[in-house]
Amino acid sequence: MALLNDLEWRYATKKYDPNKKVSQENVDKIVEAARLAPTSSGMQQFRIFVISNQELKNKMVGLSNGQQIVADASHVLVFAAWDKYTEERIDSIFNLTSKERGLPSDRFVDYTNRLKAIYLKQSPEQNFTHTAKQAYIAFGLSIAQAAELKIDATPMEGFNSEQLDELLDLRSKGLKSVLMLPIGYRDEEGDWLLPMKKVRNPIEEFVTEI
Amino acid sequence: MALLNDLEWRYATKKYDPNKKVSQENVDKIVEAARLAPTSSGMQQFRIFVISNQELKNKMVGLSNGQQIVADASHVLVFAAWDKYTEERIDSIFNLTSKERGLPSDRFVDYTNRLKAIYLKQSPEQNFTHTAKQAYIAFGLSIAQAAELKIDATPMEGFNSEQLDELLDLRSKGLKSVLMLPIGYRDEEGDWLLPMKKVRNPIEEFVTEI
Repeated sequence: MALLNDLEWRYATKKYDPNKKVSQENVDKIVEAARLAPTSSGMQQFRIFVISNQELKNKMVGLSNGQQIVADASHVLVFAAWDKYTEERIDSIFNLTSKERGLPSDRFVDYTNRLKAIYLKQSPEQNFTHTAKQAYIAFGLSIAQAAELKIDATPMEGFNSEQLDELLDLRSKGLKSVLMLPIGYRDEEGDWLLPMKKVRNPIEEFVTEI
Repeated sequence: MALLNDLEWRYATKKYDPNKKVSQENVDKIVEAARLAPTSSGMQQFRIFVISNQELKNKMVGLSNGQQIVADASHVLVFAAWDKYTEERIDSIFNLTSKERGLPSDRFVDYTNRLKAIYLKQSPEQNFTHTAKQAYIAFGLSIAQAAELKIDATPMEGFNSEQLDELLDLRSKGLKSVLMLPIGYRDEEGDWLLPMKKVRNPIEEFVTEI
């Protein structure tokens, strides 16, 4: 029940104590949960940027509808996905896999050819929709890892991704921002959401067993 | 470290023992992890269908590139997202939230008007891209919950979603299938992937700290 208890405990924190910082050890664990996340064909189509620089966090408020949580949080994780699939990217991860597993270097040729046939004929927009989805899986696992450590986190989709890409110079790296995850410690007095009940659809509406 | 250990333990199981079944109690926990997942504006834009009927699982093999894991797994969870946003769907979840929190029924009118202004002017395809992404967060949490219980799971995107929608009659419910998650117990002798090393990009390539 550990995970379920952690998920009951967490909430989308609306106010952080700007004086409480998350330790490097704990930041590393939250990133590691994302690194271990499953992704489509194991390609890990996304990267994480961890922002603790106060000046940068302050600038990020301006492209997040003025949400002060971005400045007050200890760190902000930015999940950024591949802007598109390329032959090199697909080959790179399977070359690594062959090497790490001690397999012949041509072990995955048929498989990567099938992946290339699918993705390289799609538009970059279709590619990015797919790579971005993989980041969402990892995002959930980072949130769960934060909760296990009793670290607060605020899942955020609502920001100007083009401006964030520019601020972090993501496009030159072939990446586009997808999600932001401020992490830190709640301001217990100042957070209006903290005393509110967590609301979910009742289980009988949520699940159908066949 | 519980979650990280669970994530190290899990792998995308390629062969299930068809004779070992997941208990109802454990299925319930895996579903509950998804129900507790954070979603955009808390709208829970997806539902889960849990398939244990053998005849139905056999049919699902045919629309999953013939992957026998779908038939051999104890249960298959299908994550299906709203085909589009509607005024009623948005109102429904915030009416529930107001009621559960004992707030005035008009508490979220400004907020839901903003959501409606965003989503109702998008195409159904744009809506579905967004609702489907929410299911990915929950998908990750169900996988983590399964691993905590030492239950195997196989994340699957590769299936014919239109045929699955038809088989499960999802369209009449305003849903479209997004992801499948067979769960069960590995066939230790028969799974080629089990002895293979888990491969991920090195941490220094995965994360950038600023």
